[in-house]
Amino acid sequence: MKQQIRILGIDDSPFKFKDEKATVVGALVRVPGYLEGLMRTEVTVDGSDSTEKLVEMISRSKYREQIKVVMIDGIALAGFNVIDIESLHKSTRIPAVTVTRDKPDLAKMKSALMKYFADWQQRYEKITRLELVEVRTEHKPVYACGSGVDRTELAQLVRMSTVRGSIPEPIRIAHLVSAAFVRGESYGRS
Amino acid sequence: MKQQIRILGIDDSPFKFKDEKATVVGALVRVPGYLEGLMRTEVTVDGSDSTEKLVEMISRSKYREQIKVVMIDGIALAGFNVIDIESLHKSTRIPAVTVTRDKPDLAKMKSALMKYFADWQQRYEKITRLELVEVRTEHKPVYACGSGVDRTELAQLVRMSTVRGSIPEPIRIAHLVSAAFVRGESYGRS
Repeated sequence: MKQQIRILGIDDSPFKFKDEKATVVGALVRVPGYLEGLMRTEVTVDGSDSTEKLVEMISRSKYREQIKVVMIDGIALAGFNVIDIESLHKSTRIPAVTVTRDKPDLAKMKSALMKYFADWQQRYEKITRLELVEVRTEHKPVYACGSGVDRTELAQLVRMSTVRGSIPEPIRIAHLVSAAFVRGESYGRS
Repeated sequence: MKQQIRILGIDDSPFKFKDEKATVVGALVRVPGYLEGLMRTEVTVDGSDSTEKLVEMISRSKYREQIKVVMIDGIALAGFNVIDIESLHKSTRIPAVTVTRDKPDLAKMKSALMKYFADWQQRYEKITRLELVEVRTEHKPVYACGSGVDRTELAQLVRMSTVRGSIPEPIRIAHLVSAAFVRGESYGRS
Protein backbone atom coordinates (compact mmCIF):
# COMPACT_ATOMS: atom_id res chain seq x y z
CA MET A 1 0.00 0.00 0.00
CA LYS A 2 1.35 3.43 -0.89
CA GLN A 3 2.83 5.37 2.00
CA GLN A 4 1.38 8.72 0.97
CA ILE A 5 -2.27 7.83 0.54
CA ARG A 6 -5.09 10.09 1.62
CA ILE A 7 -7.75 8.84 3.98
CA LEU A 8 -11.10 10.51 4.59
CA GLY A 9 -11.76 10.21 8.32
CA ILE A 10 -15.39 10.51 9.39
CA ASP A 11 -16.94 11.25 12.77
CA ASP A 12 -20.24 12.65 13.96
CA SER A 13 -20.76 15.56 16.30
CA PRO A 14 -22.18 15.25 19.77
CA PHE A 15 -25.96 15.61 19.74
CA LYS A 16 -28.89 15.50 22.10
CA PHE A 17 -31.60 12.94 21.57
CA LYS A 18 -34.13 15.71 20.98
CA ASP A 19 -32.03 16.89 18.02
CA GLU A 20 -33.33 15.78 14.68
CA LYS A 21 -29.95 15.89 12.92
CA ALA A 22 -26.30 15.48 13.83
CA THR A 23 -23.41 17.04 11.94
CA VAL A 24 -20.94 14.64 10.34
CA VAL A 25 -17.44 15.77 9.39
CA GLY A 26 -15.05 14.29 6.85
CA ALA A 27 -11.34 15.11 7.27
CA LEU A 28 -9.09 14.37 4.32
CA VAL A 29 -5.69 13.46 5.74
CA ARG A 30 -2.53 12.52 3.91
CA VAL A 31 -1.08 9.86 6.15
CA PRO A 32 0.07 9.97 8.78
CA GLY A 33 -1.41 13.30 9.77
CA TYR A 34 -1.41 16.15 7.23
CA LEU A 35 -4.87 17.70 6.98
CA GLU A 36 -5.70 18.62 3.39
CA GLY A 37 -9.42 19.25 3.37
CA LEU A 38 -12.67 19.16 5.30
CA MET A 39 -16.26 18.52 4.39
CA ARG A 40 -19.50 18.07 6.27
CA THR A 41 -23.01 16.72 6.00
CA GLU A 42 -25.96 16.02 8.29
CA VAL A 43 -27.61 12.73 9.16
CA THR A 44 -30.81 11.99 11.04
CA VAL A 45 -30.46 11.00 14.69
CA ASP A 46 -31.32 7.28 14.88
CA GLY A 47 -32.39 7.47 11.24
CA SER A 48 -31.41 5.31 8.26
CA ASP A 49 -29.81 7.84 5.94
CA SER A 50 -26.13 7.66 6.94
CA THR A 51 -24.96 5.54 3.98
CA GLU A 52 -26.80 7.74 1.49
CA LYS A 53 -25.56 10.96 3.10
CA LEU A 54 -21.94 9.79 3.12
CA VAL A 55 -22.14 8.72 -0.53
CA GLU A 56 -23.60 12.11 -1.41
CA MET A 57 -20.98 14.06 0.58
CA ILE A 58 -18.12 12.13 -1.01
CA SER A 59 -19.52 12.19 -4.53
CA ARG A 60 -20.01 15.95 -4.63
CA SER A 61 -16.67 16.72 -2.99
CA LYS A 62 -13.92 18.35 -5.02
CA TYR A 63 -11.52 16.15 -3.07
CA ARG A 64 -13.27 12.99 -4.32
CA GLU A 65 -10.52 11.72 -6.59
CA GLN A 66 -7.93 11.99 -3.85
CA ILE A 67 -9.73 9.79 -1.33
CA LYS A 68 -8.20 6.33 -1.31
CA VAL A 69 -9.97 5.02 1.79
CA VAL A 70 -12.93 6.14 3.88
CA MET A 71 -12.34 5.52 7.60
CA ILE A 72 -15.28 5.91 9.96
CA ASP A 73 -15.40 6.09 13.74
CA GLY A 74 -17.59 3.05 14.31
CA ILE A 75 -20.29 1.63 12.10
CA ALA A 76 -23.11 3.96 13.16
CA LEU A 77 -23.50 7.74 13.18
CA ALA A 78 -25.91 9.87 15.21
CA GLY A 79 -27.00 7.08 17.52
CA PHE A 80 -28.05 3.99 15.60
CA ASN A 81 -27.98 5.38 12.06
CA VAL A 82 -26.07 2.29 10.90
CA ILE A 83 -23.84 2.52 7.83
CA ASP A 84 -23.93 -0.17 5.18
CA ILE A 85 -20.16 -0.39 4.68
CA GLU A 86 -20.34 -2.64 1.62
CA SER A 87 -22.88 -0.40 -0.05
CA LEU A 88 -20.77 2.68 0.78
CA HIS A 89 -17.79 0.95 -0.82
CA LYS A 90 -19.74 -0.09 -3.91
CA SER A 91 -21.41 3.27 -4.45
CA THR A 92 -18.26 5.36 -4.08
CA ARG A 93 -15.86 2.71 -5.42
CA ILE A 94 -13.62 3.65 -2.48
CA PRO A 95 -12.73 1.04 0.16
CA ALA A 96 -14.51 1.78 3.44
CA VAL A 97 -13.40 0.80 6.93
CA THR A 98 -14.59 1.42 10.48
CA VAL A 99 -12.35 1.73 13.51
CA THR A 100 -13.39 1.79 17.15
CA ARG A 101 -11.49 1.77 20.41
CA ASP A 102 -14.08 -0.21 22.29
CA LYS A 103 -14.93 -3.72 21.28
CA PRO A 104 -18.62 -3.62 20.37
CA ASP A 105 -20.87 -5.42 22.85
CA LEU A 106 -23.12 -7.13 20.31
CA ALA A 107 -25.56 -8.61 22.81
CA LYS A 108 -26.15 -5.21 24.39
CA MET A 109 -26.45 -3.60 20.97
CA LYS A 110 -28.95 -6.18 19.82
CA SER A 111 -31.21 -5.70 22.80
CA ALA A 112 -31.10 -1.90 22.43
CA LEU A 113 -31.99 -2.22 18.75
CA MET A 114 -34.83 -4.64 19.48
CA LYS A 115 -36.22 -2.28 22.06
CA TYR A 116 -36.30 0.85 19.93
CA PHE A 117 -36.44 -0.10 16.25
CA ALA A 118 -39.07 -1.98 14.28
CA ASP A 119 -36.37 -2.62 11.64
CA TRP A 120 -33.84 -3.81 14.21
CA GLN A 121 -32.91 -6.87 12.15
CA GLN A 122 -31.70 -4.83 9.18
CA ARG A 123 -29.67 -2.59 11.46
CA TYR A 124 -28.18 -5.50 13.36
CA GLU A 125 -27.35 -7.30 10.15
CA LYS A 126 -25.38 -4.30 8.85
CA ILE A 127 -23.47 -4.13 12.12
CA THR A 128 -22.54 -7.81 12.15
CA ARG A 129 -22.11 -8.56 8.46
CA LEU A 130 -18.40 -7.80 8.28
CA GLU A 131 -15.74 -9.56 10.26
CA LEU A 132 -14.35 -7.46 13.09
CA VAL A 133 -10.56 -7.54 13.30
CA GLU A 134 -8.52 -6.70 16.39
CA VAL A 135 -5.61 -4.48 15.36
CA ARG A 136 -2.70 -4.06 17.72
CA THR A 137 -1.32 -0.54 18.08
CA GLU A 138 1.44 0.90 20.27
CA HIS A 139 -1.32 1.67 22.75
CA LYS A 140 -4.48 -0.34 23.25
CA PRO A 141 -5.79 -2.42 20.38
CA VAL A 142 -8.56 -1.07 18.15
CA TYR A 143 -11.32 -2.96 16.38
CA ALA A 144 -11.76 -2.56 12.66
CA CYS A 145 -13.79 -3.94 9.78
CA GLY A 146 -13.85 -3.03 6.15
CA SER A 147 -15.05 -3.59 2.62
CA GLY A 148 -12.56 -3.42 -0.24
CA VAL A 149 -9.56 -4.19 1.95
CA ASP A 150 -8.23 -7.44 3.40
CA ARG A 151 -7.21 -8.08 7.01
CA THR A 152 -3.59 -7.15 6.39
CA GLU A 153 -4.48 -3.89 4.69
CA LEU A 154 -6.93 -3.06 7.47
CA ALA A 155 -4.16 -3.31 10.05
CA GLN A 156 -1.75 -1.39 7.80
CA LEU A 157 -4.24 1.43 7.33
CA VAL A 158 -4.74 1.82 11.06
CA ARG A 159 -1.01 1.78 11.81
CA MET A 160 0.07 4.08 8.99
CA SER A 161 -2.43 6.75 10.05
CA THR A 162 -1.89 6.64 13.82
CA VAL A 163 0.52 9.21 15.28
CA ARG A 164 -0.18 9.15 19.01
CA GLY A 165 -2.30 6.83 21.14
CA SER A 166 -4.51 4.43 19.26
CA ILE A 167 -6.86 6.65 17.25
CA PRO A 168 -5.96 7.15 13.57
CA GLU A 169 -5.43 10.82 12.71
CA PRO A 170 -8.23 11.05 10.12
CA ILE A 171 -10.78 10.06 12.76
CA ARG A 172 -9.16 12.08 15.56
CA ILE A 173 -9.19 15.24 13.46
CA ALA A 174 -12.76 14.66 12.21
CA HIS A 175 -13.76 14.31 15.86
CA LEU A 176 -12.10 17.59 16.91
CA VAL A 177 -13.71 19.48 14.04
CA SER A 178 -17.21 18.04 14.48
CA ALA A 179 -17.16 18.79 18.21
CA ALA A 180 -16.00 22.37 17.63
CA PHE A 181 -18.73 22.85 15.01
CA VAL A 182 -21.42 22.00 17.47
CA ARG A 183 -20.03 22.95 20.87
CA GLY A 184 -17.86 25.92 19.97
CA GLU A 185 -14.79 24.14 21.27
CA SER A 186 -13.40 20.66 20.74
CA TYR A 187 -13.13 18.25 23.65
CA GLY A 188 -11.91 14.78 24.63
CA ARG A 189 -9.71 12.30 22.81
CA SER A 190 -7.37 15.02 21.63
CA MET B 1 12.43 28.99 22.01
CA LYS B 2 11.07 25.57 22.89
CA GLN B 3 10.63 23.22 19.97
CA GLN B 4 7.36 21.73 21.16
CA ILE B 5 5.35 24.86 21.81
CA ARG B 6 1.67 25.19 21.00
CA ILE B 7 0.44 27.98 18.78
CA LEU B 8 -3.17 29.08 18.45
CA GLY B 9 -3.69 29.84 14.76
CA ILE B 10 -6.60 32.15 13.94
CA ASP B 11 -8.47 32.76 10.70
CA ASP B 12 -11.89 34.05 9.78
CA SER B 13 -14.43 32.34 7.57
CA PRO B 14 -15.46 33.64 4.20
CA PHE B 15 -18.45 35.98 4.48
CA LYS B 16 -20.66 38.12 2.32
CA PHE B 17 -20.87 41.82 2.94
CA LYS B 18 -24.53 41.53 3.79
CA ASP B 19 -23.62 39.15 6.64
CA GLU B 20 -23.60 40.76 10.04
CA LYS B 21 -21.11 38.32 11.57
CA ALA B 22 -18.23 36.14 10.41
CA THR B 23 -17.07 32.97 12.15
CA VAL B 24 -13.52 32.98 13.49
CA VAL B 25 -11.70 29.72 14.23
CA GLY B 26 -8.78 29.10 16.56
CA ALA B 27 -6.68 25.97 15.91
CA LEU B 28 -4.35 24.88 18.69
CA VAL B 29 -1.35 23.25 17.02
CA ARG B 30 1.70 21.72 18.61
CA VAL B 31 4.44 22.72 16.19
CA PRO B 32 5.02 21.92 13.49
CA GLY B 33 1.58 20.54 12.70
CA TYR B 34 -0.18 18.39 15.30
CA LEU B 35 -3.75 19.63 15.84
CA GLU B 36 -4.73 19.44 19.50
CA GLY B 37 -7.86 21.53 19.79
CA LEU B 38 -10.27 23.88 18.09
CA MET B 39 -12.39 26.79 19.21
CA ARG B 40 -14.54 29.40 17.55
CA THR B 41 -16.16 32.77 18.01
CA GLU B 42 -17.96 35.37 15.92
CA VAL B 43 -16.98 38.91 15.07
CA THR B 44 -18.92 41.70 13.40
CA VAL B 45 -18.22 42.27 9.71
CA ASP B 46 -16.32 45.58 9.47
CA GLY B 47 -16.97 46.07 13.18
CA SER B 48 -14.58 46.90 16.03
CA ASP B 49 -14.99 43.91 18.31
CA SER B 50 -12.28 41.53 17.05
CA THR B 51 -9.77 42.19 19.86
CA GLU B 52 -12.43 41.78 22.52
CA LYS B 53 -13.86 38.63 20.94
CA LEU B 54 -10.44 37.00 20.64
CA VAL B 55 -9.60 37.81 24.26
CA GLU B 56 -12.93 36.33 25.32
CA MET B 57 -12.49 33.16 23.23
CA ILE B 58 -8.98 32.57 24.55
CA SER B 59 -9.80 33.39 28.18
CA ARG B 60 -12.72 30.99 28.41
CA SER B 61 -10.94 28.17 26.56
CA LYS B 62 -9.94 25.06 28.44
CA TYR B 63 -6.80 25.06 26.27
CA ARG B 64 -5.84 28.52 27.54
CA GLU B 65 -2.82 27.50 29.60
CA GLN B 66 -1.31 25.61 26.69
CA ILE B 67 -1.29 28.50 24.24
CA LYS B 68 2.21 29.98 24.03
CA VAL B 69 1.61 32.23 21.02
CA VAL B 70 -1.46 33.49 19.16
CA MET B 71 -0.85 33.65 15.40
CA ILE B 72 -3.41 35.44 13.25
CA ASP B 73 -3.88 35.49 9.49
CA GLY B 74 -3.43 39.23 9.00
CA ILE B 75 -4.25 42.06 11.35
CA ALA B 76 -7.97 42.32 10.54
CA LEU B 77 -10.84 39.83 10.66
CA ALA B 78 -14.19 39.99 8.86
CA GLY B 79 -13.23 42.82 6.55
CA PHE B 80 -11.74 45.77 8.45
CA ASN B 81 -12.39 44.60 12.01
CA VAL B 82 -8.81 45.50 12.95
CA ILE B 83 -7.15 43.72 15.86
CA ASP B 84 -5.19 45.67 18.43
CA ILE B 85 -2.29 43.24 18.68
CA GLU B 86 -0.66 44.92 21.68
CA SER B 87 -3.90 44.97 23.58
CA LEU B 88 -4.54 41.31 22.70
CA HIS B 89 -1.09 40.47 24.03
CA LYS B 90 -1.59 42.48 27.23
CA SER B 91 -5.06 41.17 27.97
CA THR B 92 -4.23 37.51 27.44
CA ARG B 93 -0.58 37.75 28.55
CA ILE B 94 0.19 35.61 25.48
CA PRO B 95 2.46 36.97 22.71
CA ALA B 96 0.43 37.74 19.58
CA VAL B 97 1.66 37.78 16.00
CA THR B 98 0.14 38.25 12.56
CA VAL B 99 1.34 36.56 9.40
CA THR B 100 0.32 37.34 5.83
CA ARG B 101 1.47 36.14 2.47
CA ASP B 102 0.84 39.42 0.71
CA LYS B 103 2.70 42.53 1.68
CA PRO B 104 -0.01 44.95 2.83
CA ASP B 105 -0.56 47.89 0.48
CA LEU B 106 -0.87 50.59 3.12
CA ALA B 107 -1.80 53.41 0.78
CA LYS B 108 -4.66 51.39 -0.67
CA MET B 109 -5.76 50.32 2.80
CA LYS B 110 -5.73 53.88 4.05
CA SER B 111 -7.89 55.17 1.24
CA ALA B 112 -10.39 52.31 1.69
CA LEU B 113 -10.57 53.06 5.42
CA MET B 114 -11.02 56.79 4.81
CA LYS B 115 -13.82 56.10 2.39
CA TYR B 116 -15.88 53.80 4.62
CA PHE B 117 -15.08 54.50 8.28
CA ALA B 118 -15.56 57.62 10.38
CA ASP B 119 -12.98 56.17 12.80
CA TRP B 120 -10.50 55.38 10.04
CA GLN B 121 -7.59 56.92 11.93
CA GLN B 122 -7.90 54.52 14.88
CA ARG B 123 -8.12 51.54 12.52
CA TYR B 124 -5.18 52.68 10.44
CA GLU B 125 -3.12 53.35 13.54
CA LYS B 126 -3.66 49.77 14.78
CA ILE B 127 -2.62 48.43 11.39
CA THR B 128 0.57 50.47 11.19
CA ARG B 129 1.65 50.62 14.83
CA LEU B 130 3.84 47.51 14.78
CA GLU B 131 6.85 47.03 12.57
CA LEU B 132 6.23 44.61 9.71
CA VAL B 133 9.02 42.07 9.25
CA GLU B 134 9.71 40.15 6.04
CA VAL B 135 10.36 36.51 6.94
CA ARG B 136 12.05 34.29 4.39
CA THR B 137 10.60 30.78 4.03
CA GLU B 138 11.48 27.91 1.70
CA HIS B 139 8.78 29.30 -0.56
CA LYS B 140 7.83 32.95 -0.91
CA PRO B 141 8.49 35.29 2.01
CA VAL B 142 5.70 36.14 4.43
CA TYR B 143 5.11 39.36 6.34
CA ALA B 144 4.77 39.27 10.09
CA CYS B 145 4.44 41.58 13.06
CA GLY B 146 3.99 40.86 16.72
CA SER B 147 3.77 42.00 20.29
CA GLY B 148 5.65 40.07 22.97
CA VAL B 149 8.22 38.63 20.57
CA ASP B 150 11.30 40.13 18.96
CA ARG B 151 12.23 40.00 15.27
CA THR B 152 14.26 36.83 15.68
CA GLU B 153 11.49 35.01 17.51
CA LEU B 154 8.97 36.17 14.94
CA ALA B 155 10.96 34.53 12.16
CA GLN B 156 11.54 31.40 14.30
CA LEU B 157 7.83 31.05 15.00
CA VAL B 158 6.96 31.20 11.32
CA ARG B 159 9.64 28.71 10.33
CA MET B 160 9.03 26.21 13.13
CA SER B 161 5.32 26.01 12.30
CA THR B 162 5.54 25.82 8.52
CA VAL B 163 5.42 22.35 6.95
CA ARG B 164 4.72 22.98 3.29
CA GLY B 165 4.61 26.17 1.26
CA SER B 166 4.78 29.39 3.20
CA ILE B 167 1.69 29.33 5.43
CA PRO B 168 2.25 28.24 9.04
CA GLU B 169 0.17 25.18 9.97
CA PRO B 170 -1.84 26.86 12.75
CA ILE B 171 -3.19 29.40 10.26
CA ARG B 172 -3.58 26.90 7.41
CA ILE B 173 -5.64 24.57 9.60
CA ALA B 174 -7.75 27.40 11.07
CA HIS B 175 -8.47 28.43 7.49
CA LEU B 176 -9.59 24.94 6.42
CA VAL B 177 -11.88 24.61 9.44
CA SER B 178 -13.44 28.04 9.19
CA ALA B 179 -14.17 27.58 5.50
CA ALA B 180 -15.76 24.17 6.10
CA PHE B 181 -17.89 25.64 8.89
CA VAL B 182 -19.43 28.16 6.59
CA ARG B 183 -19.28 26.59 3.14
CA GLY B 184 -19.68 22.91 3.99
CA GLU B 185 -16.32 22.15 2.46
CA SER B 186 -12.90 23.71 2.77
CA TYR B 187 -11.23 25.37 -0.20
CA GLY B 188 -8.06 27.09 -1.35
CA ARG B 189 -4.65 27.41 0.26
CA SER B 190 -4.70 23.78 1.35
